[in-house]
Amino acid sequence: MSKSLDPALAAGNRLALAGYDARHFLWEAREGVATLTLNRPTRKNPLTFESYAELRELFIRLKYATDVHAVVITGAGDNFCSGGDVHEIIGPLVDLPAPELLMFTRMTGEVVKALRACPQPVIAAVDGVCAGAGAIIAMASDLRLGTARSKTAFLFNRVGLAGCDMGACALLPRLIGQGRASELLFTGRSLGGEEAERWGFFNRLAAPDALLAEAQALARELVRGPTFANGMTKTMLHQEWSMGIDQAIEAEAQAQALCMATQDFKRAYEAFVAREKPVFRGD
Amino acid sequence: MSKSLDPALAAGNRLALAGYDARHFLWEAREGVATLTLNRPTRKNPLTFESYAELRELFIRLKYATDVHAVVITGAGDNFCSGGDVHEIIGPLVDLPAPELLMFTRMTGEVVKALRACPQPVIAAVDGVCAGAGAIIAMASDLRLGTARSKTAFLFNRVGLAGCDMGACALLPRLIGQGRASELLFTGRSLGGEEAERWGFFNRLAAPDALLAEAQALARELVRGPTFANGMTKTMLHQEWSMGIDQAIEAEAQAQALCMATQDFKRAYEAFVAREKPVFRGD
Amino acid sequence: MSKSLDPALAAGNRLALAGYDARHFLWEAREGVATLTLNRPTRKNPLTFESYAELRELFIRLKYATDVHAVVITGAGDNFCSGGDVHEIIGPLVDLPAPELLMFTRMTGEVVKALRACPQPVIAAVDGVCAGAGAIIAMASDLRLGTARSKTAFLFNRVGLAGCDMGACALLPRLIGQGRASELLFTGRSLGGEEAERWGFFNRLAAPDALLAEAQALARELVRGPTFANGMTKTMLHQEWSMGIDQAIEAEAQAQALCMATQDFKRAYEAFVAREKPVFRGD
Repeated sequence: MSKSLDPALAAGNRLALAGYDARHFLWEAREGVATLTLNRPTRKNPLTFESYAELRELFIRLKYATDVHAVVITGAGDNFCSGGDVHEIIGPLVDLPAPELLMFTRMTGEVVKALRACPQPVIAAVDGVCAGAGAIIAMASDLRLGTARSKTAFLFNRVGLAGCDMGACALLPRLIGQGRASELLFTGRSLGGEEAERWGFFNRLAAPDALLAEAQALARELVRGPTFANGMTKTMLHQEWSMGIDQAIEAEAQAQALCMATQDFKRAYEAFVAREKPVFRGD
Repeated sequence: MSKSLDPALAAGNRLALAGYDARHFLWEAREGVATLTLNRPTRKNPLTFESYAELRELFIRLKYATDVHAVVITGAGDNFCSGGDVHEIIGPLVDLPAPELLMFTRMTGEVVKALRACPQPVIAAVDGVCAGAGAIIAMASDLRLGTARSKTAFLFNRVGLAGCDMGACALLPRLIGQGRASELLFTGRSLGGEEAERWGFFNRLAAPDALLAEAQALARELVRGPTFANGMTKTMLHQEWSMGIDQAIEAEAQAQALCMATQDFKRAYEAFVAREKPVFRGD
Repeated sequence: MSKSLDPALAAGNRLALAGYDARHFLWEAREGVATLTLNRPTRKNPLTFESYAELRELFIRLKYATDVHAVVITGAGDNFCSGGDVHEIIGPLVDLPAPELLMFTRMTGEVVKALRACPQPVIAAVDGVCAGAGAIIAMASDLRLGTARSKTAFLFNRVGLAGCDMGACALLPRLIGQGRASELLFTGRSLGGEEAERWGFFNRLAAPDALLAEAQALARELVRGPTFANGMTKTMLHQEWSMGIDQAIEAEAQAQALCMATQDFKRAYEAFVAREKPVFRGD
């Protein structure tokens, strides 16, 4: 068994987040899988200044979590998320001075940055309405399960804004191709579930009442794998976004060599030789 | 209502292009939508030195247009464009000195640069033959409507050239994926309309006799939206092409904050509160 | 006819590789098309330290080959490649010091770098198992033909490693989109042949007993084309991986101008005027 960081140092830098007491959404963790539920179902789970801020802080802290190894994001009551609340967010933004506007757009962008930077794979379970900033959070997740009846829409141009919000013009083309992304961002039209699966936006569809359970089962499957290595996969998908191929290959050589120095790699080999199933521990 | 630029300054920097008198293609504008028709139907609308030059100059000037907010590109008589004319372009190129060759390839590339740099969304309406430089112009457009009978082909290797023409090796992989793009560029084979829709090259298919009307209707829909914000969407799709995600998020924070300072954003909010449909004016 | 390099200089810098005598796989060349067969069928053609090294050296040398203009990679006996051999590769890696691990991951990465850097289009003919480093070699090829029964899997997380191996996190998202690539790399699940074709991983499917012949026929078709220009297409797809569009357009202007200075370009024009089929010679 490998050594751990000095306990005093570890105490300051490692966090137990399974029992995190969320204020602006639900958070429940079991067997290393946390489920984050946006929870204002009567208004289709809009985001507010407060929930943005709490999402950002939580995802930043997940970088140091010892007990959460995958996150499922979903919405309460048949909808994923309707985006930024018109009354609580758009209203106050109108007539703000430029520096305040930039502070707001940077703040929402930080949610995506933090979600991409934490090592935990994030799985969005998307039913019903998935709109605006909600569609961005789904898009910024690592994997997406949807339902046939789900409707994903990048609605920004409907409120007089551009499709460039929280990284959309970078992320969406890589998911579904530049032409289809352009259409969704220029028109704001709604993407149905089956079309979204065909385009690779959703990894697969599930029945509405099985959606969350399937997303959690997928998350548990990932958590049973080598979690340190999973985090490295996520990091490198991020790092290599705009690298040349040769540079990406060198970056991966370094990252994978580090994974080869883990006990999980050794365990997998020993299990293979013993014809057993490996048990990974993330070290 | 917002102020405008000093009239004298504006006169020098803003252009009315709806009534532009085109020489080497047709140009007609209505309700902010210009339709550009390549118009040598007996030869399937090939490009010539003159039409390349006029396209480049027109798209550069569109950056300053006050009265054109979307462009539809199409071809006369059942074909989109057969590419560079063999007799008028390829013939004269053979045996040219290297600096002259580079001047030519740069000149064709400038057409794509200008088309990508203007703020107007460009919609290609593609029927019949869409080949060589014609396929590039379709590919460089923001949106593409096709017909089932259309045939798109990157024919460069058939004339002894490489697939790297006017940005093809950068643009095509982002539209349809690296493997499919490689196949089309290495083989020069023709891509049928249904396959092109399945691959995301076309946003959708239309019947040949409805194609242009559908493309123009889509353009009018975009023009009724917030045109300043649409232009920013286009600019950011271009800017973020090879940015890292974190840099893209910051770039979008700035761009979107600027859109939040527009009157169109305020109009959308006020219309929402009044339960009306917003009327955008592009300021 | 164009001149050639000084013979003495050419002798040192140009290589005849059609008759190359391979040690750790099969190599057979005919009409400019080399077929490389991974050949340990009883173990599904795993890679070993020796075969990695020979692949790397051979692809580096192909840059200078005068008589091989396309390469087909396949596996003997109904499987493509099972990846790095567990006994011969993974076993020895466990407990190696960090510098040795990095030397290994760099060495495998060099195979991909060399495969991407040689001018010859590489076509993978994939039947049966295509796993781990085998899946990477398929992915790093320019074109891929598969069979319906083929199973492609990025198994790294099954052995405690990350999906970032030999460039996978850069290459796979460009082939099939970021969401589908993330799923395959995080889960290690097997991708069936039909799904792989639908996603653009395979260019097309073939019947198992026709697969190799179809791949070779496609390779011969490419070799009958302008091989210098084909090599430039490959080089530019590589060069433009992380360029901005405007930079890519300038890079292509230079590359294509060079192709316009070739005899193949002139031959194509003269054949067109004479209503004949051009015969390309690669100069």
